[in-house]
Amino acid sequence: MKPVNVGMLGLGTVGSGVVNILERNADVINRRAGREIRVTHASARHPERPRSCRLEGIRLTTDPFEVVDDPEVEIIAELIGGHEPARELVLRALDNGKHVITANKALIASHGNEIFARARENGVTVAFEAAVAGGIPIIKAVREALTGNRIEWLAGIINGTSNYILTEMFYEGRQFGDVLAEAQRLGYAEADPSFDVDGTDAAHKLTILASIAFGIPLQYDKVYVEGIDHITREDVAFAEELGFRIKHLGMAFHEEGGYALRVHPTLLPRRHMLANVDGVMNAVMVKGDAVGPTLYYGAGAGAEPTASAVVADMIDVVREFNLEPENRVPYLAFHTESLSREPVLPMRDVETAYYLRLSARDEPGVLADVTRVLGDFGISIEAIIQKQPQAGAEHVPIILLTHRIHERHMDAAIERLEHLEQVDGRVVRIRVESLE
Amino acid sequence: MKPVNVGMLGLGTVGSGVVNILERNADVINRRAGREIRVTHASARHPERPRSCRLEGIRLTTDPFEVVDDPEVEIIAELIGGHEPARELVLRALDNGKHVITANKALIASHGNEIFARARENGVTVAFEAAVAGGIPIIKAVREALTGNRIEWLAGIINGTSNYILTEMFYEGRQFGDVLAEAQRLGYAEADPSFDVDGTDAAHKLTILASIAFGIPLQYDKVYVEGIDHITREDVAFAEELGFRIKHLGMAFHEEGGYALRVHPTLLPRRHMLANVDGVMNAVMVKGDAVGPTLYYGAGAGAEPTASAVVADMIDVVREFNLEPENRVPYLAFHTESLSREPVLPMRDVETAYYLRLSARDEPGVLADVTRVLGDFGISIEAIIQKQPQAGAEHVPIILLTHRIHERHMDAAIERLEHLEQVDGRVVRIRVESLE
Repeated sequence: MKPVNVGMLGLGTVGSGVVNILERNADVINRRAGREIRVTHASARHPERPRSCRLEGIRLTTDPFEVVDDPEVEIIAELIGGHEPARELVLRALDNGKHVITANKALIASHGNEIFARARENGVTVAFEAAVAGGIPIIKAVREALTGNRIEWLAGIINGTSNYILTEMFYEGRQFGDVLAEAQRLGYAEADPSFDVDGTDAAHKLTILASIAFGIPLQYDKVYVEGIDHITREDVAFAEELGFRIKHLGMAFHEEGGYALRVHPTLLPRRHMLANVDGVMNAVMVKGDAVGPTLYYGAGAGAEPTASAVVADMIDVVREFNLEPENRVPYLAFHTESLSREPVLPMRDVETAYYLRLSARDEPGVLADVTRVLGDFGISIEAIIQKQPQAGAEHVPIILLTHRIHERHMDAAIERLEHLEQVDGRVVRIRVESLE
Repeated sequence: MKPVNVGMLGLGTVGSGVVNILERNADVINRRAGREIRVTHASARHPERPRSCRLEGIRLTTDPFEVVDDPEVEIIAELIGGHEPARELVLRALDNGKHVITANKALIASHGNEIFARARENGVTVAFEAAVAGGIPIIKAVREALTGNRIEWLAGIINGTSNYILTEMFYEGRQFGDVLAEAQRLGYAEADPSFDVDGTDAAHKLTILASIAFGIPLQYDKVYVEGIDHITREDVAFAEELGFRIKHLGMAFHEEGGYALRVHPTLLPRRHMLANVDGVMNAVMVKGDAVGPTLYYGAGAGAEPTASAVVADMIDVVREFNLEPENRVPYLAFHTESLSREPVLPMRDVETAYYLRLSARDEPGVLADVTRVLGDFGISIEAIIQKQPQAGAEHVPIILLTHRIHERHMDAAIERLEHLEQVDGRVVRIRVESLE
């Protein structure tokens, strides 16, 4: 099938990320979408500036309206941000019969009702997964996966800058202003961070989440909003003393008589999963009456995490081009004829780290013998615990933590260990993973 | 539009849950799907047994083939489990042109390739979100949301019984056998728990997850499987001493030369998010090259969590009946004409608990005055911290934790507190939520 042509509005951080992902992962994207997706047009205010993506094959212009008016472009990715000219560009693209993907939370929260109506009139789609919580598929989860539920409430850490500041205040005992200044130096916070720390950004996202959870029109102006600039390290410490962590949350509740949409700092019990989401990470918890609490966690900002959501929306749109249900979303995510034939490895060829526990005679030289066996198979040791024998016991437990090694070497080493005269019985082996 | 008729195969725990959700949440489901979804037919081995769902309007039979052959039924929900007759029933339903929803992991892991091919031949859909991790939309996330990513690995706690046992061994220092016996008494574990504790159930689920992550055919027989029955409380304690928790994980890695599909107990660093998933809860972490690590958490089993996924699949299928892209998934999850007109509440009408910090003169009777003011507004106190004054300081910080109250009462109380002679400056107020 012929490739799908994408026109990018904006080639900044997220825009470059989209171009990079589409190029780097072209093979898996084609296998999933059933079509090639390629960027053919792009607009940038300063096209001469160096970019972190390749621009070969892309027609570059300074005028975004040229891109939305180009008849070759089928999908527009709006990554300019803000209200105007983003709104005008999106409406014009829709009027031109193009599908639109946007990461623009302010646009959707404030003008979504108008934009959706225009898309409907033109028989095209607007997708906005990237507008909320970056790479976390929270819109898809609420809109397409929790659909059997009456949503009771949702609550999220949906601004990475605020969460980074509160995390530093908690772990390092620092004041708000100090952390913010450092975050700006390090590039974690915008040069003008006011929308992040005053709650505006979170309120935009919460507006969208509340609408899709409860089925209410977008009403940004009804959200109660408070930022984190008045939180002191003393409050963070007192809260901890009481068993709580302070998090900046966007929350939506369905209550008697209406909906409560709230963005403000919140004390959460220390063991709550949201209380343990640290740094720039985002997470949203959604409580459905049938499913109970569910949580979605990941990077809420940054070039590639946000671009990941933009590209997913593109693939959703392209999959819609295929009308048969089976071809929309392939059963195994990839189209059947393009499933991989690479083998599943036998366990002996898999590499992992190990926890070993063995019972050994309590006499000198045992540990040396054990470590020599491991050394013979190229297995290096990260930690050892040797316990004192219990009164009257002849054997002591020895616990070893090893570095990563192929399982076949560990199999051989364990066999040898079990034949050592000083070792009693079987060696217990549990694999260790750091999953980073 | 006319209602969609569902035929249920099996009216056990999950089947009853599906009937209950479709009835209880009929209004929100209709507003999301654009059609009424109703159960019209059902098969049960012992139809006379008492059920935890209403059966009015459902034609009940002992013969499941009657249901799959009935021309009035458009969607079949297969909730019998196991290989046969589930496989035969599903194939026959597909041949009869019906869409099939199933929660049957063994069926998909072992016969999925055949079943998908048959669905394709008949131009109908098979949906199986409920087969993996119950109510967590992990299949949708990997298949439709991380589609721009090259998936590097995924790892999940995907068997609630095993996780419950390991959690109890960790917190209570109990042995495997004791906890298992108790779990069976309490109904957390099946009468025959062998598929749970020997890893078979997790291996079925991992087979499916690995296929959709990497685009490889389903190959259950290639999964390395180990259960938790050899884990002792001593290993759990030694692991903790080394800074780890033992979790039973299903993991899939893309490695040099092929894929590693592994189900076994694993030491995970104590602060890892998966290490902190306790009890019967499930969670899956997926690492994409663009998005980084993402995590999906929720109830992995149980009547309503599993039924939540079954109903979501039904809504997905029904939305496919609508051919225009806009009508498939409504922008705000609910169809436009059915958005709710209930109001967003002003903050003064919202109820929450509060953390208050105030600075008061260090003299007798201050605390009594403060608590009296709160009492006057019906605000009751859950905890108080009063600090010793710093050397030379005239004021001491007083920290209060209150029970839930409407914000308007708290506004009034704070105003009064700030007018107390002994209170210095403003009262700091941070809201407290337990989000349970």
